[in-house]
Amino acid sequence: MHPAITYIQAHRHAFVEELKAFLRIPSVSTKSEHRGDIQQAAQWVADAMRAIGLEHVQVVPTAGHPVVYADWLHAPGQPTALIYGHYDVQPPEPLDLWISGPFDPTVRNGELYARGAVDDKGQVFMHLKALEAHLKTQGALPINVRLLIEGEEEIGSPNLDGWILRNRDRLKADMVVISDTAMLAKGVPGITHGLRGLIYFQLDVEGTRSDLHSGSFGGAVVNPAFALAQVLAQLKDRNGRIGIPGFYDDVRKLPAGERRALAGLPFSEKKLQREIGAPALVGEKGFSTLERLWTRPTLEINGLYSGFIGKGAKTVLPGRAMAKVSMRLVPNQNPARIARLFTQHVKRICPRTVRMKVTEISGRGTPWLAPTDHPAMQAMARAIQQGFGKKPVFTRTGGTIPAVATFTRLLKAPSLLMGIGLPDENAHAPNEKLDLDNLHHGMLSAVHLWNELAEMRLK
Amino acid sequence: MHPAITYIQAHRHAFVEELKAFLRIPSVSTKSEHRGDIQQAAQWVADAMRAIGLEHVQVVPTAGHPVVYADWLHAPGQPTALIYGHYDVQPPEPLDLWISGPFDPTVRNGELYARGAVDDKGQVFMHLKALEAHLKTQGALPINVRLLIEGEEEIGSPNLDGWILRNRDRLKADMVVISDTAMLAKGVPGITHGLRGLIYFQLDVEGTRSDLHSGSFGGAVVNPAFALAQVLAQLKDRNGRIGIPGFYDDVRKLPAGERRALAGLPFSEKKLQREIGAPALVGEKGFSTLERLWTRPTLEINGLYSGFIGKGAKTVLPGRAMAKVSMRLVPNQNPARIARLFTQHVKRICPRTVRMKVTEISGRGTPWLAPTDHPAMQAMARAIQQGFGKKPVFTRTGGTIPAVATFTRLLKAPSLLMGIGLPDENAHAPNEKLDLDNLHHGMLSAVHLWNELAEMRLK
Repeated sequence: MHPAITYIQAHRHAFVEELKAFLRIPSVSTKSEHRGDIQQAAQWVADAMRAIGLEHVQVVPTAGHPVVYADWLHAPGQPTALIYGHYDVQPPEPLDLWISGPFDPTVRNGELYARGAVDDKGQVFMHLKALEAHLKTQGALPINVRLLIEGEEEIGSPNLDGWILRNRDRLKADMVVISDTAMLAKGVPGITHGLRGLIYFQLDVEGTRSDLHSGSFGGAVVNPAFALAQVLAQLKDRNGRIGIPGFYDDVRKLPAGERRALAGLPFSEKKLQREIGAPALVGEKGFSTLERLWTRPTLEINGLYSGFIGKGAKTVLPGRAMAKVSMRLVPNQNPARIARLFTQHVKRICPRTVRMKVTEISGRGTPWLAPTDHPAMQAMARAIQQGFGKKPVFTRTGGTIPAVATFTRLLKAPSLLMGIGLPDENAHAPNEKLDLDNLHHGMLSAVHLWNELAEMRLK
Repeated sequence: MHPAITYIQAHRHAFVEELKAFLRIPSVSTKSEHRGDIQQAAQWVADAMRAIGLEHVQVVPTAGHPVVYADWLHAPGQPTALIYGHYDVQPPEPLDLWISGPFDPTVRNGELYARGAVDDKGQVFMHLKALEAHLKTQGALPINVRLLIEGEEEIGSPNLDGWILRNRDRLKADMVVISDTAMLAKGVPGITHGLRGLIYFQLDVEGTRSDLHSGSFGGAVVNPAFALAQVLAQLKDRNGRIGIPGFYDDVRKLPAGERRALAGLPFSEKKLQREIGAPALVGEKGFSTLERLWTRPTLEINGLYSGFIGKGAKTVLPGRAMAKVSMRLVPNQNPARIARLFTQHVKRICPRTVRMKVTEISGRGTPWLAPTDHPAMQAMARAIQQGFGKKPVFTRTGGTIPAVATFTRLLKAPSLLMGIGLPDENAHAPNEKLDLDNLHHGMLSAVHLWNELAEMRLK
């Protein structure tokens, strides 16, 4: 057995304790009050990189949250892989639904519960430990690596593109390795070769200057909450089709072969429905659940607010109403074009009796779809087969990793997505968790990955 | 000049300071954390009653917040008036829109700013001071009075009916005097002879057990915020007509004479629009603003919540969505019947893909309309003419005072509504205020009222 593998096995339990320290830092990127925690998390990553022998470790400031960079480039003639991940996390709210505190990592039934456990601190940690295993047992890595761990993924990576553009030379790589996705189910390891894109908006509707008494004014004054409900209700029709003119123009039709391949994947709609506790799985008519999630765009309301939302009754006629609305995009939709179409459409359908402000509040993510026959993709498949003891399947995900499109565009490097999450691990929701078996097998796979990439011959 | 009038004039400024103490008590009835403040406000009223020489002063517990009772019954052969008001207030939120603190009463430009200034602490205080003026200068009142000041008006007076029913004998009165309404405009004193009724609901829509990642699940899972928006958007049509089947069945058609009378009132739509900062006044097609406010029922969204409403972006697919929806009713709509129709309708139009809970969360208010030629109504008109130096107009209001219908039904006594508020005094909204000239003229009118009622002969 490879000494790096033995190393991972020997430290299996110690690694969990180490990861807990990383998870205790509430590095919520969307909230300014967590600025200090973000710094601390970046520092934690940099310290961990230095401790395992990586070089040129640097916490680099950006216009937003810092990027952490490191490299190890002592394998001449071998390819260079860029490992990308993020140390920032989603807000933990609503707090009352967490069984244990979001920043108090707790193991229950072989699963580690904490905000960021699977998205993405646990998966960043997995790579650090696999590199450590090689370096501590061999004093070297099979190939060259660079690491780029950012702090703004959960807010759409607004400063990443610029930073990558300015550091294009220093980031030169033959492939990008990312672990920030989930497999289809436990025991079904996979490689993700497609992502949806993302655009995110806030709609602010104003009726009157301030809230009014609903008795004294109700019936004679516009209700912005009602106007907002009218706008939102029109965005999708009965068949789940998005009503923005031109929205589907560039959507690539799914070839029959891909459709059959999706249908053949070991995926259970019943199981998904049970896991999330939904009365039914619903979506755009004419498509299966996996097609809806991976190959079709969607529009969702992410937040809604108006008037009085406390306990009890307040007879207020709200002066303002707000909605957060985002769209997931698929090949070949262009985020800038869809953003323009959305803005025009909501302004057009908004009643003239209110004022509406449309604000794009997150960086854009471009949809991505990669061929599965690339030699690096095949090398990763062999690594996963050794790490998990099972041949991986090729899947897509409905989520977005804005950096992937950037790497394709700016570094001309293919992305390899090896995610060890599970669909029910509550990323972005209360009780986020990480399966510790998957973490372990993921570390083993990552150890094998560097060997496989070293042995692979790029055409 | 009547010595009671001189007394009011001499204490004009001292009274404002006294009222401030009452306004400093945050007696918000809808929030359980204010239970202590509610008790304190009830005690403040009782102490004030005792100090001016009222008798049988009592803070009476109910199943909810206490009722404060007092009387003075030493005018044999004279009628008995029951003065009704409330010491509870609306929640002050949103706090950031207040120029001075809601419970830090502050005078600016002749107006006293505080939650409860006009609704209804200031108007209760007005009556206390008019009684004080008679009692301190004459040692007696011209007629008999009872006072009933409750603490649950802002939550629909859920315990008042039962209490009045049980104390029907002790509350025997020839008329009920209430000051909890507004006049049409400054310089246009009035008597309110019509009120709308009220029913209030909370809609809770549940999609999935908890919030989900909008990338991983968006497009294949129901969005409860979207389902709620669809339900709400259907409740009114383009013409502002409420879409609940049977809703308008019992609405009394406005006689042509009343319609002309409304049109002749000194009311400016332009001024109202400017005051509230609305781009336009809108409502049910085919009706004037005053008709919409006073004679037509309405349905309003009072609150809306789902998902993430903080700053920034969170890519969450909400598990739940909530709306508060209330209806103002007019003669001869029956609140129980409309509540049933509403509940049936929203359940019928709610998509089957979500679970919806419909909860009535406030006491019901029955609509009320009284003839203006009653001798007591005419006596009040003379009192106001003397107090304000101007003949009052008869108006209605879009608001609700649930107790009025109760008094009609249980005490068989006519209600006399002498309100000294102004339409732009922000009742139920931030920066609630009370015009101090109106407070003063209201006190003078109340002093005259007891004389006029003593001289009136009830048929």
